[in-house]
Amino acid sequence: MQRFALGIEYDGSAYHGWQRQQDGVRSIQEELEKALSQIANEPIELVGAGRTDKGVHALEQVAHFDTRAQRTTYNWRRGLNALLPKTITVRWVQEVGEKFHARFSAQRRCYRYFIHNSPDKPALFHQQLGWEYRPMKLAPMQKAADYLLGTHDFSAFRAADCQAQSPVKTLERLQVFQRGHLWMIEAQADGFLMHMVRNLTGTLVAVGTGERSPEWALEVLRSKDRRQAGIAAPAKGLFMHWVEYGPEFYLPQQRGELLFWPEGTLGK
Amino acid sequence: MQRFALGIEYDGSAYHGWQRQQDGVRSIQEELEKALSQIANEPIELVGAGRTDKGVHALEQVAHFDTRAQRTTYNWRRGLNALLPKTITVRWVQEVGEKFHARFSAQRRCYRYFIHNSPDKPALFHQQLGWEYRPMKLAPMQKAADYLLGTHDFSAFRAADCQAQSPVKTLERLQVFQRGHLWMIEAQADGFLMHMVRNLTGTLVAVGTGERSPEWALEVLRSKDRRQAGIAAPAKGLFMHWVEYGPEFYLPQQRGELLFWPEGTLGK
Repeated sequence: MQRFALGIEYDGSAYHGWQRQQDGVRSIQEELEKALSQIANEPIELVGAGRTDKGVHALEQVAHFDTRAQRTTYNWRRGLNALLPKTITVRWVQEVGEKFHARFSAQRRCYRYFIHNSPDKPALFHQQLGWEYRPMKLAPMQKAADYLLGTHDFSAFRAADCQAQSPVKTLERLQVFQRGHLWMIEAQADGFLMHMVRNLTGTLVAVGTGERSPEWALEVLRSKDRRQAGIAAPAKGLFMHWVEYGPEFYLPQQRGELLFWPEGTLGK
Repeated sequence: MQRFALGIEYDGSAYHGWQRQQDGVRSIQEELEKALSQIANEPIELVGAGRTDKGVHALEQVAHFDTRAQRTTYNWRRGLNALLPKTITVRWVQEVGEKFHARFSAQRRCYRYFIHNSPDKPALFHQQLGWEYRPMKLAPMQKAADYLLGTHDFSAFRAADCQAQSPVKTLERLQVFQRGHLWMIEAQADGFLMHMVRNLTGTLVAVGTGERSPEWALEVLRSKDRRQAGIAAPAKGLFMHWVEYGPEFYLPQQRGELLFWPEGTLGK
């Protein structure tokens, strides 16, 4: 048996999320497993680093699978990209040892949430942007974000049906950027609870519009009560940006720039 | 009668272009005219600055209409954005004198073409990017572009069914930018012939991949023969960026940044 890791880019608009579903709706995992199984000529199961919700996109999701099929990484990549729908692309394929696990070996993850802040809805990229029509202020949003940094019980930002064993996560980075009408919230942690980035975003937006104070974000965190937080931001503005693994796996990850927001302009 | 000008943003993926069609397929003009007529309670015809092809997007198309209906610019904008589909947004509405004509008063226009240059197809933004899998080189592309600048007969870059009276246009700017896998071609002229930007792009790509020399672009131009130029680049990577009018019309145009490529990073 050989184990391979994949870097996967996808547009989540057309899918009911990453996770394979029972009821026959389209999922990204299922599309990939179909293509992998066809190339391998045997059934293949894929394990992803994280489950993205319906409508959430990924610049680089990471997943792994085991197979007896003898194929080069070049042939896996070429074959997959020929078979996959146009909304899913495999960016790289790498052979990894059996110690690698896409979910359990992941050390940290980074998500980006994009918001169009303007009186009028965004027409371009309407499936890739959240929208807030009330003007937002950056300073109070960043102040609220800073209160949430560190190791905490994030139950207040967790979906009711989240299956994580522990609600304690370490939020290493929660930063708000603005460039004209386009805002971005970048969240980096050892792991995220279900809907956590969307709930954090909804809470920061409530502060940004002046509906709530920065200190309210701290109260929400301390309450550990989901009903206290802001309304979850819609899935479509959310992108899984990268997943980090130890250097021992030699993954060819690129932390590639996201088209909306080139790396070189961060902080400007 | 009052004349109003509009700034319009749209995602062209779902439409058969700007122009109203006879055969009942969806067009951006028709969607806008339906909404305008409903608000005005009288039939309204709209004149656009330029006709964009099926699948082409606009950050700011400009159009005008005449009406007897008494509405404030605020009410036009609010009403239109409430009625329009999510893929079309009116960014501004301005009252203009009868001397203003969206097409004939336009002094110059700017288009941007985006290309994903990578062995694998783009999954994210697959309806907003052209794709070239062969590596491209910037210097020869820009050299070819420079040969095309100025006032010329652009018949070689004109679609067979183009209805423009003259094939002579002044190409003021044709610049190639690269940022990682993402390339952009910016074309600015007093006016463009049908498919001209897509044909110019196809020609520059043929030079960028090394299939042709920069000097070949000049030969194509001089041939005035459409069969000599490169294959037209697909519509989906093309954005109408802005249209320029004289300051006497006081249009609230923003030349807003295009999400893919913030103004501040041009030339980097």
